[in-house]
Amino acid sequence: MALYPKPLEELIDSLKKLPTIGQRGAERLTFHLLNSQQEENKTLGEAILNLKGRIKSCSICNNITENEPCAICSDEKRDRKLICVVEEFCDVTTLEKTDYNGLYHVLGGKISPLEGIGPDTLKIKELVERLKMDEPREVIIATNTDTEGETTALYLSKLLKSLNVPHSRIAHGLPLGSSIGNTDQFTLTQAMEGRRKLG
Amino acid sequence: MALYPKPLEELIDSLKKLPTIGQRGAERLTFHLLNSQQEENKTLGEAILNLKGRIKSCSICNNITENEPCAICSDEKRDRKLICVVEEFCDVTTLEKTDYNGLYHVLGGKISPLEGIGPDTLKIKELVERLKMDEPREVIIATNTDTEGETTALYLSKLLKSLNVPHSRIAHGLPLGSSIGNTDQFTLTQAMEGRRKLG
Repeated sequence: MALYPKPLEELIDSLKKLPTIGQRGAERLTFHLLNSQQEENKTLGEAILNLKGRIKSCSICNNITENEPCAICSDEKRDRKLICVVEEFCDVTTLEKTDYNGLYHVLGGKISPLEGIGPDTLKIKELVERLKMDEPREVIIATNTDTEGETTALYLSKLLKSLNVPHSRIAHGLPLGSSIGNTDQFTLTQAMEGRRKLG
Repeated sequence: MALYPKPLEELIDSLKKLPTIGQRGAERLTFHLLNSQQEENKTLGEAILNLKGRIKSCSICNNITENEPCAICSDEKRDRKLICVVEEFCDVTTLEKTDYNGLYHVLGGKISPLEGIGPDTLKIKELVERLKMDEPREVIIATNTDTEGETTALYLSKLLKSLNVPHSRIAHGLPLGSSIGNTDQFTLTQAMEGRRKLG
């Protein structure tokens, strides 16, 4: 005999497929949903059902959006001559918490030969097209600082140089609140190289 | 400006209401669902939407079920003269992993004066009705061993005694694989009291 009635089994099986949720967690969530108000379950269920249908990629910057073009690309108050290139759309969210007020370009990943992801898989061709139209004052390369992110940054830098587009790379160094004693040598080397003159 | 497009915000808000899921976890799950196949999201969304509509309480034992009566109550191969009383339906699932082959009665909670839960709130009246009809050989009280569970067990024991129904309480003692050195004094006291003669 199955452990749970079929509707529960089905929900547990579906929840288990999500990251960080195991059998026990899926059971706990299912029990919770069974004791919740149907109104709340309806809201959650429909939000999941309709998520992908309501979200698309912005035709300009490739960020996720409900409307076309996205809220950032259509915001006339932003600095439209500044483009920040990031790997994923969630990086946009993180950068939006800073003072940055330019536009973005979401690559949709990073160059990773091991996983078969080359420049053609990413939205680099679209970036080049955009640069021809927009003629930005500066392109900021804000890919991650892991190997693939650095490879992607290097590739983009060479490309932008050949196109005569002014560009920069976000700074490498010690994160705020960290101690020198606990920082790895590679970060420290880059923090020393990137030191700023104060006086 | 909102951090995410509205469909994402709505899903994150809904997920955050679930136990053990915070802002960061809800974001991660939402990103995952955004990259999942729509077919999988449809299965999950519909399982949540339809859960409560497809599940009801068994009119006999109060366990959750899709069909009436539940699979356990309608299983003629089980020992129908043995009734195990538990607090919640999830306790049934756990006990089903053992050799137990009798029926169940789900109280739907435990006596807790602090939370305003008295015997009348629980399915005790229904249990008494059932005992008159079924005349079981034995009722096993398998409530939890916390204060409220013990209070409920005591209450049930008195009630069953007054009705002349043979009944028992699941054993208290050391869980399998535990060491005496790490066991609290209350469990040890009960393990000593409940000791079994071997020779």
